[in-house]
Amino acid sequence: MIKLNLDEIVSLTGGRLLRAGQAEEITGVASLDEAGSTDVSFLGNEKYYQDFLQTAAGVVLIPPAVPENPDGQTTSALIEVENPSVAFGLVVKKFVSAQRKFQPGVHPSAIVAEGVQFDPEKVSIQAGVIIESGVRIGAGTEIGAGSVICHDVSIGENCLLHANVTVRERCILQNEVVLQPGAVIGSDGYGYALVDGRHETIDQVGIVLLEDRVEVGANSTIDRARFGKTVVGEGSKIDNLVQIGHNVRIGKHCLIVAQSGLAGSTHLGDYVTMAAQTGAVGHLKIHDRAVLSARAVASKDMKGDTVYMGMPGRPIQEEQKKKAAVARLPKLISQVKELQKRVDALDSSES
Amino acid sequence: MIKLNLDEIVSLTGGRLLRAGQAEEITGVASLDEAGSTDVSFLGNEKYYQDFLQTAAGVVLIPPAVPENPDGQTTSALIEVENPSVAFGLVVKKFVSAQRKFQPGVHPSAIVAEGVQFDPEKVSIQAGVIIESGVRIGAGTEIGAGSVICHDVSIGENCLLHANVTVRERCILQNEVVLQPGAVIGSDGYGYALVDGRHETIDQVGIVLLEDRVEVGANSTIDRARFGKTVVGEGSKIDNLVQIGHNVRIGKHCLIVAQSGLAGSTHLGDYVTMAAQTGAVGHLKIHDRAVLSARAVASKDMKGDTVYMGMPGRPIQEEQKKKAAVARLPKLISQVKELQKRVDALDSSES
Amino acid sequence: MIKLNLDEIVSLTGGRLLRAGQAEEITGVASLDEAGSTDVSFLGNEKYYQDFLQTAAGVVLIPPAVPENPDGQTTSALIEVENPSVAFGLVVKKFVSAQRKFQPGVHPSAIVAEGVQFDPEKVSIQAGVIIESGVRIGAGTEIGAGSVICHDVSIGENCLLHANVTVRERCILQNEVVLQPGAVIGSDGYGYALVDGRHETIDQVGIVLLEDRVEVGANSTIDRARFGKTVVGEGSKIDNLVQIGHNVRIGKHCLIVAQSGLAGSTHLGDYVTMAAQTGAVGHLKIHDRAVLSARAVASKDMKGDTVYMGMPGRPIQEEQKKKAAVARLPKLISQVKELQKRVDALDSSES
Repeated sequence: MIKLNLDEIVSLTGGRLLRAGQAEEITGVASLDEAGSTDVSFLGNEKYYQDFLQTAAGVVLIPPAVPENPDGQTTSALIEVENPSVAFGLVVKKFVSAQRKFQPGVHPSAIVAEGVQFDPEKVSIQAGVIIESGVRIGAGTEIGAGSVICHDVSIGENCLLHANVTVRERCILQNEVVLQPGAVIGSDGYGYALVDGRHETIDQVGIVLLEDRVEVGANSTIDRARFGKTVVGEGSKIDNLVQIGHNVRIGKHCLIVAQSGLAGSTHLGDYVTMAAQTGAVGHLKIHDRAVLSARAVASKDMKGDTVYMGMPGRPIQEEQKKKAAVARLPKLISQVKELQKRVDALDSSES
Repeated sequence: MIKLNLDEIVSLTGGRLLRAGQAEEITGVASLDEAGSTDVSFLGNEKYYQDFLQTAAGVVLIPPAVPENPDGQTTSALIEVENPSVAFGLVVKKFVSAQRKFQPGVHPSAIVAEGVQFDPEKVSIQAGVIIESGVRIGAGTEIGAGSVICHDVSIGENCLLHANVTVRERCILQNEVVLQPGAVIGSDGYGYALVDGRHETIDQVGIVLLEDRVEVGANSTIDRARFGKTVVGEGSKIDNLVQIGHNVRIGKHCLIVAQSGLAGSTHLGDYVTMAAQTGAVGHLKIHDRAVLSARAVASKDMKGDTVYMGMPGRPIQEEQKKKAAVARLPKLISQVKELQKRVDALDSSES
Repeated sequence: MIKLNLDEIVSLTGGRLLRAGQAEEITGVASLDEAGSTDVSFLGNEKYYQDFLQTAAGVVLIPPAVPENPDGQTTSALIEVENPSVAFGLVVKKFVSAQRKFQPGVHPSAIVAEGVQFDPEKVSIQAGVIIESGVRIGAGTEIGAGSVICHDVSIGENCLLHANVTVRERCILQNEVVLQPGAVIGSDGYGYALVDGRHETIDQVGIVLLEDRVEVGANSTIDRARFGKTVVGEGSKIDNLVQIGHNVRIGKHCLIVAQSGLAGSTHLGDYVTMAAQTGAVGHLKIHDRAVLSARAVASKDMKGDTVYMGMPGRPIQEEQKKKAAVARLPKLISQVKELQKRVDALDSSES
């Protein structure tokens, strides 16, 4: 276990010390409501301002807007930083790097087929891993217990595959790829042709390519292409329980949040965000920096630099206007009733 | 295989025998439409009343409201019970307990690291299980084939982990916890910070704590906290393919039904129900006994003792009123057209 | 690697050669935009017509409607076929069959309990597979690395279970069943009874039956019946991350697309389609050839031969009419305002 003093934390975060408080040596990290005098914490969201006022944390990282001596906040050391969440991450990383060690070697229970290409002194193959023939694994890569790497898969350098993942035949993982437990890369795409009343399977002979620094969440599934490649571009991050259909192409630095799904052959540009539980139908183009807010569905091509909402997904202003109009409906109905009465009255006075 | 006679079933269920019928010895359980003369069945839902009239079941457990000699129901023994579903469960449990046996021991193919703490005569470690260093396992616990228990995990007594589950490092399972196959406990939370155009990973150094009698469904995923704990409270039951984000806290005795998702840092009270395919955005508080009906989304804090519907989730009466208003829209549109004509007429007669 | 010439492709697809182009020997398959002179490609969707005009493919399979000598399409051999997607599938299958070989045998690392019934010369058990006691496996079946087959499971002939699947005790897979990686068959149904403030588990003693040619996608979950059977009928295809509740019965030749969920005891007829991210509440009947479009929810029994949309799911025309009416709402609101003014004016001129 490592210890950090206040100066080290200031220097690590690039922050400005506002108040030294009563900080002791720091040995851990915690949320404002759980932290004690030996923990660093941070104020990352104004929702937690009350917690901030009451925290027992030794050190708190705060954003520029917070007053230097907030009422009631009397014991913590305060360090002002540009982005408390990022700064806190740097502290966490310091503790993590002291904790987690990459230990090269092949566990004796691992089943590695003949001819698999890797340097046993530079990769870490955990217990019960199964690596089929034709696989290549780059230096610095760790493969977690119970994972299965099928024939002819290629894995780059410094990848971290957690326990119980499956990578099917011929798929390619470039460098620094992370797979959470249970992720499935290269399952068959869902393709059938109705012939004489039966759904005949359309063979899926392509692969999945995960570019550098792609991360895939727990139990997410990425289907291999019917032919060619399903691609997830450099630096894109996929959360848990996400489904990526065959022949999808995701650009660079996209975020695909939990339980979202992309149907086959849809293409995403760069920096696209799909929030939680969103969907995209097949064969679409969704352009750079488009954002689907939670639960939205892309049902046709979508321009970039726009936030979409609803199903079918529309620019958020339009959708909110529609929602506001619907909220006014009950009032509208009574207005129309009222008008009918008045027109009835006018009509009868007329005749 | 065990056999039960009519008296034993009456006493087991605490019911009242309405009619002895032609019941033979009972050797199994079945639904009304599948049961034969040696099966117990039950009428748990009025939808199945037709099946009840035609069943060949040897014994049927019925609720108080059903007439003693319903027309056409001539052969089954009938036992009146307060709650047929619960009573049936007791009969099932009797058969199950005769069938499933806990067999302690460590399968020779299991890989158990040195120093793992458990009593080999009181736990059951199945084939191909991998247990990394620092793990503790309580008496009466069974770990299913192919499961991976990572470093420093703590598992209490009488837990049942089915096949192919993953529990990542340092997570804590208290007593009588059940994990269905493929469940992932302690995957990294989804946290990134955009730095110079790249999503930098925010380390997730916390854990997951599953309290007593928590159950987690097949292929569900529960992310470890960024720091501190993601908590599922005592007796809460999570269905299949559910996603629980980092730092979520679920209270006691909650029900989270299939394919629901909770975003990070949201807190649920006790006895909260989230029906199937619901969602909750992050950093919310959802209070005791709140119910999200199927597909509802919690997008802000929610009071307890209320049923919510829709997206954004609203009290169900409000949402149903809105839906009713929308259903009246086409009529409203023609009413307005009609009014316009009438006002046109008035206008022209005026001038 | 195999090679095909133009005549072989014409005969394989049953097509008509429109133009011989400059086709060389064909050694692979590719999409229009990725294909080179040694690839077959196809025009399956008019969206790709521009790609077709610019493709470098050696051979393109085209539908009847395309002109024989389209402008700008000058090098590819063109073969007209009834259904290019199906015809292309035949070519792919030719390459696949040359590539993938069924290799019988039991990997020495597999753990097969005593008394498991199978012909070791006719089944393929991959590395790290665990097969518990009482299991039967038919000829021609392959079980992928790391999979777990629990006690008393019965698997028919020519099944393909990919890596890391779990089939729990007593479930039955008939012939030619395919399970993608991570699929879970026979997890416990989600059933609890609230007794004295605690959710008591209702035992789930039934099984799952997958009939001939059923396919189940990656990380999908199918719960065992409370008693009796959860059934997926002959030829039905289930995509990734789908949840099938206990006692569900799915008829023959149904399609259940990714991330859909069926609650307990719902019955589907034959040829029912549930598009992506749909849902069905429990205890329903959805009749033959009903189609739920993406995101639709079945909340009551549904007639067959009808396309449903929305939540609650309604016939698509009705739902679209409602959506159109909502889109007109902002206009309607201003019309009512306008009317109010006019009636005000009439009123004041009246008085």
